[in-house]
Amino acid sequence: MRGLFLTFEGPEGAGKTTQLVRLQARLEAAGHTLTVTREPGGTPLGTRVREVVLDPALEMEALPEFLLYSASRAQLVQDVVRPALARGETVLCDRYADSSLAYQGAGRGLPLSLLQTITQAATGGLQPDLTILLDLDPAVGLARAAARGQPDRLERADLGFHQRVRQGFLLLAQQEPPRFLVLDASKTPDELAGEIWNALPTVLTR
Amino acid sequence: MRGLFLTFEGPEGAGKTTQLVRLQARLEAAGHTLTVTREPGGTPLGTRVREVVLDPALEMEALPEFLLYSASRAQLVQDVVRPALARGETVLCDRYADSSLAYQGAGRGLPLSLLQTITQAATGGLQPDLTILLDLDPAVGLARAAARGQPDRLERADLGFHQRVRQGFLLLAQQEPPRFLVLDASKTPDELAGEIWNALPTVLTR
Repeated sequence: MRGLFLTFEGPEGAGKTTQLVRLQARLEAAGHTLTVTREPGGTPLGTRVREVVLDPALEMEALPEFLLYSASRAQLVQDVVRPALARGETVLCDRYADSSLAYQGAGRGLPLSLLQTITQAATGGLQPDLTILLDLDPAVGLARAAARGQPDRLERADLGFHQRVRQGFLLLAQQEPPRFLVLDASKTPDELAGEIWNALPTVLTR
Repeated sequence: MRGLFLTFEGPEGAGKTTQLVRLQARLEAAGHTLTVTREPGGTPLGTRVREVVLDPALEMEALPEFLLYSASRAQLVQDVVRPALARGETVLCDRYADSSLAYQGAGRGLPLSLLQTITQAATGGLQPDLTILLDLDPAVGLARAAARGQPDRLERADLGFHQRVRQGFLLLAQQEPPRFLVLDASKTPDELAGEIWNALPTVLTR
């Protein structure tokens, strides 16, 4: 039996990692075997790509940025996600292809058809069973992210960019309602964790 | 007046860099203003990508490898090659898109249509005015490369791979005869430098 593939998406500071860790704890307590990973990263190649793509000192055009994320994604899908799903594990991933469509498509203005062609090749068409979108006003999210320390290259982009990214995520969610669980990330971590946990049985039995 | 864009291609150890440096010296002596660069590399981003893609310690699938080269290429074309050509300079580049078609297409077996779609996006369709292909038996080239020191990740691939790469380069040259100058790289550096220099007037006046 193939495992479930769950991804967390949303802007900087929306609480993706917090919610992923809480869901991980509850699923493990319920006896699930998990693989937890993130983008960019998750493989030796992805870790190297992550260092490059988030480096605030590097100048980078939109297309090379997207190609670097896609390189990390292709290696992650092949080496980590597909093998774990084939073993029947539940895979939790902090960001996935929707982030590229929102950040480099809606945010940077790259043509969606090109991004989709490359994403299809990089993932072999692998889609999450559920994508938890933590939606948040980017001004709030960036303030939260800034409070954590030095902003990375993406966090340093202007507010207009992050507003386009948010709209991009919401549009993706509108286009595929069964795959997306859109939550209001201004709620407390406890409230969000509860909403995610309560939504899971519906997803698991689809 | 737009400058000329000349690229050097061929297998490991064929003498691309030697010939590029010799052509650079002759063109500078003849009064040309040059921009000399290489792939992967040529920009701060490209230099970081080069470190990753040539690292012999990293496991990498064919598609992420191609996407990394393409990221470096996109940044190079936008930041270095196009601005130099617009200033009327002659650009010499050690490897370019043909290397990806030969190494990741013919060598690794990725579909050419996908590679061409991504290359078109990464380069905006910018093609060299002349591509000097230094053709060499890969067994000879690899022995030469090995004599230079520690082989990089590509040089460590097996001989069958390098034979497919060679055939890939030759096929590209057959498909676009006016763009390619195919030379027998088993000749001496002096002979090759002379052949390249003698071929240039025809190219320059095309």
